Amino acid sequence: MEVYLSGEIHTDWRDQIVRGAAAKGLDVTFTSPVTDHDASDDCGVAIMGAEDQKFWHDHKGAKLNAIRTRAAIAAADVVVVRFGEKYRQWNAAFDAGYAAALGKSLVIMHGADHQHALKEVDAAALAVTETPEQVVQILDYVLNGALPG
Amino acid sequence: MEVYLSGEIHTDWRDQIVRGAAAKGLDVTFTSPVTDHDASDDCGVAIMGAEDQKFWHDHKGAKLNAIRTRAAIAAADVVVVRFGEKYRQWNAAFDAGYAAALGKSLVIMHGADHQHALKEVDAAALAVTETPEQVVQILDYVLNGALPG
Amino acid sequence: MEVYLSGEIHTDWRDQIVRGAAAKGLDVTFTSPVTDHDASDDCGVAIMGAEDQKFWHDHKGAKLNAIRTRAAIAAADVVVVRFGEKYRQWNAAFDAGYAAALGKSLVIMHGADHQHALKEVDAAALAVTETPEQVVQILDYVLNGALPG
Amino acid sequence: MEVYLSGEIHTDWRDQIVRGAAAKGLDVTFTSPVTDHDASDDCGVAIMGAEDQKFWHDHKGAKLNAIRTRAAIAAADVVVVRFGEKYRQWNAAFDAGYAAALGKSLVIMHGADHQHALKEVDAAALAVTETPEQVVQILDYVLNGALPG
Amino acid sequence: MEVYLSGEIHTDWRDQIVRGAAAKGLDVTFTSPVTDHDASDDCGVAIMGAEDQKFWHDHKGAKLNAIRTRAAIAAADVVVVRFGEKYRQWNAAFDAGYAAALGKSLVIMHGADHQHALKEVDAAALAVTETPEQVVQILDYVLNGALPG
Amino acid sequence: MEVYLSGEIHTDWRDQIVRGAAAKGLDVTFTSPVTDHDASDDCGVAIMGAEDQKFWHDHKGAKLNAIRTRAAIAAADVVVVRFGEKYRQWNAAFDAGYAAALGKSLVIMHGADHQHALKEVDAAALAVTETPEQVVQILDYVLNGALPG
Amino acid sequence: MEVYLSGEIHTDWRDQIVRGAAAKGLDVTFTSPVTDHDASDDCGVAIMGAEDQKFWHDHKGAKLNAIRTRAAIAAADVVVVRFGEKYRQWNAAFDAGYAAALGKSLVIMHGADHQHALKEVDAAALAVTETPEQVVQILDYVLNGALPG
Amino acid sequence: MEVYLSGEIHTDWRDQIVRGAAAKGLDVTFTSPVTDHDASDDCGVAIMGAEDQKFWHDHKGAKLNAIRTRAAIAAADVVVVRFGEKYRQWNAAFDAGYAAALGKSLVIMHGADHQHALKEVDAAALAVTETPEQVVQILDYVLNGALPG
Repeated sequence: MEVYLSGEIHTDWRDQIVRGAAAKGLDVTFTSPVTDHDASDDCGVAIMGAEDQKFWHDHKGAKLNAIRTRAAIAAADVVVVRFGEKYRQWNAAFDAGYAAALGKSLVIMHGADHQHALKEVDAAALAVTETPEQVVQILDYVLNGALPG
Repeated sequence: MEVYLSGEIHTDWRDQIVRGAAAKGLDVTFTSPVTDHDASDDCGVAIMGAEDQKFWHDHKGAKLNAIRTRAAIAAADVVVVRFGEKYRQWNAAFDAGYAAALGKSLVIMHGADHQHALKEVDAAALAVTETPEQVVQILDYVLNGALPG
Repeated sequence: MEVYLSGEIHTDWRDQIVRGAAAKGLDVTFTSPVTDHDASDDCGVAIMGAEDQKFWHDHKGAKLNAIRTRAAIAAADVVVVRFGEKYRQWNAAFDAGYAAALGKSLVIMHGADHQHALKEVDAAALAVTETPEQVVQILDYVLNGALPG
Repeated sequence: MEVYLSGEIHTDWRDQIVRGAAAKGLDVTFTSPVTDHDASDDCGVAIMGAEDQKFWHDHKGAKLNAIRTRAAIAAADVVVVRFGEKYRQWNAAFDAGYAAALGKSLVIMHGADHQHALKEVDAAALAVTETPEQVVQILDYVLNGALPG
Repeated sequence: MEVYLSGEIHTDWRDQIVRGAAAKGLDVTFTSPVTDHDASDDCGVAIMGAEDQKFWHDHKGAKLNAIRTRAAIAAADVVVVRFGEKYRQWNAAFDAGYAAALGKSLVIMHGADHQHALKEVDAAALAVTETPEQVVQILDYVLNGALPG
Repeated sequence: MEVYLSGEIHTDWRDQIVRGAAAKGLDVTFTSPVTDHDASDDCGVAIMGAEDQKFWHDHKGAKLNAIRTRAAIAAADVVVVRFGEKYRQWNAAFDAGYAAALGKSLVIMHGADHQHALKEVDAAALAVTETPEQVVQILDYVLNGALPG
Repeated sequence: MEVYLSGEIHTDWRDQIVRGAAAKGLDVTFTSPVTDHDASDDCGVAIMGAEDQKFWHDHKGAKLNAIRTRAAIAAADVVVVRFGEKYRQWNAAFDAGYAAALGKSLVIMHGADHQHALKEVDAAALAVTETPEQVVQILDYVLNGALPG
Repeated sequence: MEVYLSGEIHTDWRDQIVRGAAAKGLDVTFTSPVTDHDASDDCGVAIMGAEDQKFWHDHKGAKLNAIRTRAAIAAADVVVVRFGEKYRQWNAAFDAGYAAALGKSLVIMHGADHQHALKEVDAAALAVTETPEQVVQILDYVLNGALPG
């Protein structure tokens, strides 16, 4: 099973899921966007040349990142999208919508304080979680029928 | 041409576009989500019964709204998504991703202050604008080849 | 908006929805299977010749009915599926699965006693209702943003 | 060849097919839903937290199971759906409709007493069987051209 | 409902169906290939210039005819394919396969003597008939639920 | 029937086809890109603001034009692509590839001197022509079965 | 590369292609229908029980064979269809149409005497051949760029 | 990751990319058209027999090459299209349009002098480059998040 881990890049939630899945021996391949914030912002101009305008600087980078993210979403069986405490995270919501339209199984992760603001995103999901441990438990159940405890 | 107007519901940008298009006599059918904030929040429980938990209250409403919004996006040739000054607006970004995955032509509208945060959304668009007037001009050009001035 | 009314054929729930929608002046086209039980059972042999075996008698009829039902589901924006009190109603659940895989917006209608048995079907729906009046209210909201009361 | 075994979970028909296929050395990968009735019912709340309402208890579980079943149906070449003697089994009929709409090859298994009630489901199938042994023979023929006897 | 009438062009079966449908007032639009045998054979070279080789003479014509037939099959809800007594009629079987792969509802018409040779084609159909009158009755039933006398 | 006229914009071939079709009373709706060269080049910056770099000036315009051309190709039954004597015309070949991948019926128009260079494009077409009159004759045949002369 | 070998089953053309490809060391996986005529005719009743009517005897068999053939066509990159000297071979033409609608690359093989009757089938092909050796040469060229001689 | 290298065949840009990717140990499979100009031109007649007319000589070859190129584009995650200094290169632009319509990630490579003529092609791309080294850097970033330097 291929699982794409989209969204927030400032905490170690991806590592927690990857380690948790490894600890249970789950047969999962995880993919993710480039999570180095600076590399992700500057990749376009670093490879294809500088831009005077911030808009085009960002545009080149965002498109380059899209090569990676669209291929990964298209190949995924499950797309996990985490919304963190900070920033706008519109790219996370964009990924969720993109995955939903492709018929991917969506798992959303966020804290209780974002519940109302994310109601449309949650409504498109097959599971809404709060912690990486819950995502690992979901994968264990989906693959092996195993429940926690 | 069918155009879906997604996103921010607290200013009159939709009316400006509809009026501007009418003034130019453009052959466009506009669709939109339900823009009455309270109705949109409470529609699920108002019709299908109350819920104790806010999550399920919101869930019923968000799914009911999805009947309208998914049909409208699927039928649209162009999807315009406006990001305003306030709120998280994750549903707007979700709609943008959903429309992008369906291959719809995306037109994004937002102020300069949101440029960096929306770079992935802008990168999926065929036009990035700031004002309703620009959207009307785009529709006039796309339909009639007419440029402003 | 095109709405297909699938499922139980022994009560007048379709008429109630059609009359309710007409009373509100909703812009909806309703379609449905052939609801004459005998005609639906015997159509195949009546037109294409008798069969000795009940299996093939039914087979010819079921395929003939599929010409109508598949075209109607494919053309529908919304598929309403009602589960009544009697019979197995496997064709209703089949239609629900068929519509779900095509990405249609599903509205399910059933009494509380069937809640557990229909949980997988309900989980694929955008709305779960108990009465024809609720379906009419849903259509009124989806089309016009109008809430009851 | 990948074969999804959907439907009734209270007899050992899946084991019979898997053992029969192994005995013949067939090159088949079998998948199935979680067949532990209690785990399947309670998985949602066990991982994502308890619900007061039975509807939402079931809803969370049904969606979680859908992550597994939809991935398996999507990956399958052949979907076998068995209808047993007991319960409503609407999820079995739902799976059959879902698979049919995706163009999967359907093999249905049921006793003679359910023939009339399943006529629409049978009409969408490429084979209608009564026993696990027949399913194994079908797989042997489809893969190797071998007939029984 | 749009119905494409494919296959044999040397008897008046299309006229019989069109007249029969008109007599019953059925709401059907019928489409068909060009049924003038000479025009159909020579259209390519007549418009785009002569060819020395019969293969390319035929090739230009067959492709030109495909502009019409593929658009008509794609737009059709029902594809009726008739196999007559004479000629190879491979284009009829090709159309049937083409329509089947697009998920169109197939109605096949042929005499009893061709039953065995057409078994794969019949197996992909939702109805197998012998006469134009039966096709009209099928359309009447599918549209209006009406059975013959 | 909807026909998109793509490619060369410096001669009056589109007018010849439209007039020829009108003279024969053909039931065709023609669509085309914006054929005003300057408007097509400058539309992006005229509406969405000037750019210092020619690349982005062109980029904004090309994307804006894509809103029109992709909608028109998607809606077309037949895509006619003309290659003229001058310029690179890579957008014409791009449109041909785009239409081919969508399964549209392609009609190519070019002079004999471009035959070898266009062999891959011609190989994807259902008709290869040299003159607007031939295109009109093709449409007359496809719609009415009428041959010239 | 996966190649499906459809059509005539009374000569050893499939063996010639498989041996020719092996002799050149081509990286091709070949699939085919069940080519034992009697098994193919009787498989349905042999597994699922006898039928009194020849139509249903054939029907059960044809559907069972379709499980194999549709999976193979869906998985194929190239579909080779051979028309021999004898029989109607409508299933071969049906397979060709089915494969064409799925966008598969078609290679047709037949003698010169069938050229006119197969013009619509040939027009949908990317190559028209007469001998198994030519098919092997095509595969060698497509995979390795190697030409004969 | 599978990358198709389309376009110009008279310089060693493909070799530079393949060598560069190998030097970095990138996990990429590269595919390409047959790049032997004479073989590509003559393959059709070499295998399927000579033609008197240059048009059909080219036609047979172009279709044969399409078996290879369409399979490769369909299998690719990324399609790189290079436009060189010479020739019309309409097949390169055709490939770009074909890949764009399939939703493939496009990377375009050309010199600054072709910028204006390729603006529609560039507008459909996720990256526009000038050198093989940039393409290698893009692949390294997309796969590994590594930036040059």
